[in-house]
Amino acid sequence: MDFIEEKMTVEEVAALAGPSEALASSVRELIDAVIRTQMDGEAMEDARVHVEQATKLLRERELPGSFGMRYGNTLRAWGNSVIGLRNAMAPPLEVTWNDDGTVVGHAKLGAAFEGPAGYVHGGVSALLLDQVCGEAAAAANRPGMTAQLTLRYRKAAKLGPVRVEAEALPEGESHKTKVVGRLISLVGDAEIVCVEAEGLFILPKAVREYMEEMNLETHL
Amino acid sequence: MDFIEEKMTVEEVAALAGPSEALASSVRELIDAVIRTQMDGEAMEDARVHVEQATKLLRERELPGSFGMRYGNTLRAWGNSVIGLRNAMAPPLEVTWNDDGTVVGHAKLGAAFEGPAGYVHGGVSALLLDQVCGEAAAAANRPGMTAQLTLRYRKAAKLGPVRVEAEALPEGESHKTKVVGRLISLVGDAEIVCVEAEGLFILPKAVREYMEEMNLETHL
Repeated sequence: MDFIEEKMTVEEVAALAGPSEALASSVRELIDAVIRTQMDGEAMEDARVHVEQATKLLRERELPGSFGMRYGNTLRAWGNSVIGLRNAMAPPLEVTWNDDGTVVGHAKLGAAFEGPAGYVHGGVSALLLDQVCGEAAAAANRPGMTAQLTLRYRKAAKLGPVRVEAEALPEGESHKTKVVGRLISLVGDAEIVCVEAEGLFILPKAVREYMEEMNLETHL
Repeated sequence: MDFIEEKMTVEEVAALAGPSEALASSVRELIDAVIRTQMDGEAMEDARVHVEQATKLLRERELPGSFGMRYGNTLRAWGNSVIGLRNAMAPPLEVTWNDDGTVVGHAKLGAAFEGPAGYVHGGVSALLLDQVCGEAAAAANRPGMTAQLTLRYRKAAKLGPVRVEAEALPEGESHKTKVVGRLISLVGDAEIVCVEAEGLFILPKAVREYMEEMNLETHL
């Protein structure tokens, strides 16, 4: 596992979080614009020049690989595909861990999340549910990696706002956690349960030992 | 369903495909750079200015909603989250329909697809498998929307090249198709089966009627 210890202070991380979030948010708009533009090839080429200039600036100094999991005074998984602060493909899903053990995420799914015309891609629902179910296991102090995930699609979810919720079930061993979740489409005042999920999350032995050794108590 | 008929000629679509693909590919690099940059907040702000200029150019004329499914002389689902030509969050997965009925996709999963540190996000595996399993149903002339998908995670897949394959099983009714698939991590010469999938795809009655009426024989 690429856990990386770092020395950054809480203030240094906070100072980096602002521009990181603003940049990722701008790139998210760009992803949307690329899909929806009706401009011609010439305009796209002009846009591409700007994109490459941005990339060049950022690549002047960069990590050799993925972001990984950075811990020290804060814990950062900024590259995560669903919640990563720096990841423009993440909707992002805004996740809250409630006191009652439930975990709830909100996102507005736009053009980039399309499968069937006008609807959320079935795999995108799976992506969000995997994350929220995994967090629910972690919120119950029983973190793990996905071992099994079953998704039942009840209704097609229209592109737009969704709520994703999950909770760990009390049964089972401490390192094998069952979680149930659902993805709810929010259309006006209506709440439509579109996808139901059932997950099994297991913390591999090697990771358990590693976390004990590193005195890490936090979630993956 | 947002099926949209369009009059574009094959040549017009081809002329638009080149710059679209080049632009999406550049934005993919940008997404990666945003995650991995080690530049400071000021450089990120400079990059953001370029990004916003690109977005502004593209938004001068744009579709009111998502890309949808456009048909006429060609069939285009350029916004699709996994294979969309215009979608920069798509890896993209390059999918081939083989003569023997199997469907195979290849992608290189970089920093944007991270879940556990250094590994493919479990939900990303689900996303890709949903797409390829759905295409396998379509390749068997029994297209449908995902009704159920079960994913079994055997090993964690390292970030890097993967192959995703699926095939429809002959059993069942024509509008309810069972599909099996797997995601294989390619590490050097080794092929590691990391995730196994079992899916059920159903073509809703309303869509069947619509497709008959529109004389559409193609996949979702």
